[in-house]
Amino acid sequence: MAPSKELTNRLEDTLRRANNVLLKQGRSILVNLEISALQFNTLLSIREVGSMTMGDVCKNLFVACSTATDLADRMERIELVERVRDDKDRRVIRLRLLPRGNEVIDAVIAERQRFIGEVLKEYTEQEYLELSRGLELLAERMELI
Amino acid sequence: MAPSKELTNRLEDTLRRANNVLLKQGRSILVNLEISALQFNTLLSIREVGSMTMGDVCKNLFVACSTATDLADRMERIELVERVRDDKDRRVIRLRLLPRGNEVIDAVIAERQRFIGEVLKEYTEQEYLELSRGLELLAERMELI
Repeated sequence: MAPSKELTNRLEDTLRRANNVLLKQGRSILVNLEISALQFNTLLSIREVGSMTMGDVCKNLFVACSTATDLADRMERIELVERVRDDKDRRVIRLRLLPRGNEVIDAVIAERQRFIGEVLKEYTEQEYLELSRGLELLAERMELI
Repeated sequence: MAPSKELTNRLEDTLRRANNVLLKQGRSILVNLEISALQFNTLLSIREVGSMTMGDVCKNLFVACSTATDLADRMERIELVERVRDDKDRRVIRLRLLPRGNEVIDAVIAERQRFIGEVLKEYTEQEYLELSRGLELLAERMELI
């Protein structure tokens, strides 16, 4: 179809609303863990690519490189990440997740799942099928573009 | 329905995938604008509540208050926000969005809309209806919990 501006904008708005609720719900557990939003975003970025050089950290998280060093220091101190030397170039330092870093990400995902489970209690089978079919198609087509 | 762990987790995963693509697409324009992720998150937080005290900034963005001061300085310099005195308590400083701050948020939303418009070109009317109905119900039920 040739989507109108109105339909497009409405869909963007609905997705943003649903996601905001889910994002806040998931991250609500970070306060008790005393983990900052920036630290958590760094964990997510590292997990996505496996490990990151300090240069990647400044670039991917859009922070000054001096900030990235402080950030890495603090995250190493509370055992979220460790600094390791790059296998190919020993002069390069990479950040890698420690088990606790992975646990923090998994705890946020578990909280999102718990919340979605609550929401789904309100669903009929038919409504669930429609929703999951619609969302899977959307994710697929978005990833293809 | 009583949702199984499998269905719940799958829905969370699909939503997260779709949102990650959309988030990256929207924020891709920030690099050219030389606006950091932290600056952008600060803009979003301020827009949500109208204005924020420096204390709110430290708390809501989980950054040290010294970082928040640097952040506010930089954001004031590039005219994203301004510091104003609180109407009720003149000793309190609040951050408020300047027009450019709002423009940056709107530009990211416009980019998300453009991208969703592209995705929707692949949709039939029927698929669109199913998707939008499913998402609106989801957003509504999430906001109610």
